[in-house]
Amino acid sequence: MIGRLNHVAIVVPDLEAASNYYRNIMGAEVSSAEALPEHGVITVFVELENSTIELLHPLGDHSPVSAFLERNPDGGVHHLCYQVEDITSARLQLETSGARVLGDGKPRIGAHGNPVLFLHPKDSFGVLIELEEG
Amino acid sequence: MIGRLNHVAIVVPDLEAASNYYRNIMGAEVSSAEALPEHGVITVFVELENSTIELLHPLGDHSPVSAFLERNPDGGVHHLCYQVEDITSARLQLETSGARVLGDGKPRIGAHGNPVLFLHPKDSFGVLIELEEG
Repeated sequence: MIGRLNHVAIVVPDLEAASNYYRNIMGAEVSSAEALPEHGVITVFVELENSTIELLHPLGDHSPVSAFLERNPDGGVHHLCYQVEDITSARLQLETSGARVLGDGKPRIGAHGNPVLFLHPKDSFGVLIELEEG
Repeated sequence: MIGRLNHVAIVVPDLEAASNYYRNIMGAEVSSAEALPEHGVITVFVELENSTIELLHPLGDHSPVSAFLERNPDGGVHHLCYQVEDITSARLQLETSGARVLGDGKPRIGAHGNPVLFLHPKDSFGVLIELEEG
């Protein structure tokens, strides 16, 4: 079912410092910051040869990553995103196997404009998993 | 400096259950378990199209991942491994920039037989980073 590792999302307390770290110390290609108010985050993309690191920082009063940053004030890995060809059949396969999809279970449009689902981290050994169609 | 995302390492409390999850529910290609007593872990490789997930479980009384599992009994992302072409020049560049290399700072031979370094997670926004030559 899962294909590429689309990205690893890291929540950081200081987006500019984290961008500088990946650009200047790690020597990676780092995008400028992009505000995604409908997703409650500001994001920076660190483009690697084979995948992407997404640096996330809360935006607004109801950011989905605020609680994570409160629990992990230094930052940390927030989720892994795997690509799937068909999100509807992925959802069916997950629900049949007993894996829990977060929220109402319906795919919603993610930060890249594609349908996404999030899986309960208790089912995936403490790791929040995003599935993205693409 | 950094090239490919070589792997994402996830420490899990039950290696067989995690292997079954990635094989049967995620539909990924999953290796058999391999004991690496010199590294204090048993490992399973989840091969994705563009990278690898390494599932780790403690082996022996002095495993380097035991404390992580005590702090995170459900499991969780333990580290990200980025490839570098030359570990010696990577180390020099890191030390010049003030990033802290763990241990005595010297590369050691990692689980894949290549020289590796680990960077202090406080410098990398809460994420333990392994650099592997290759």
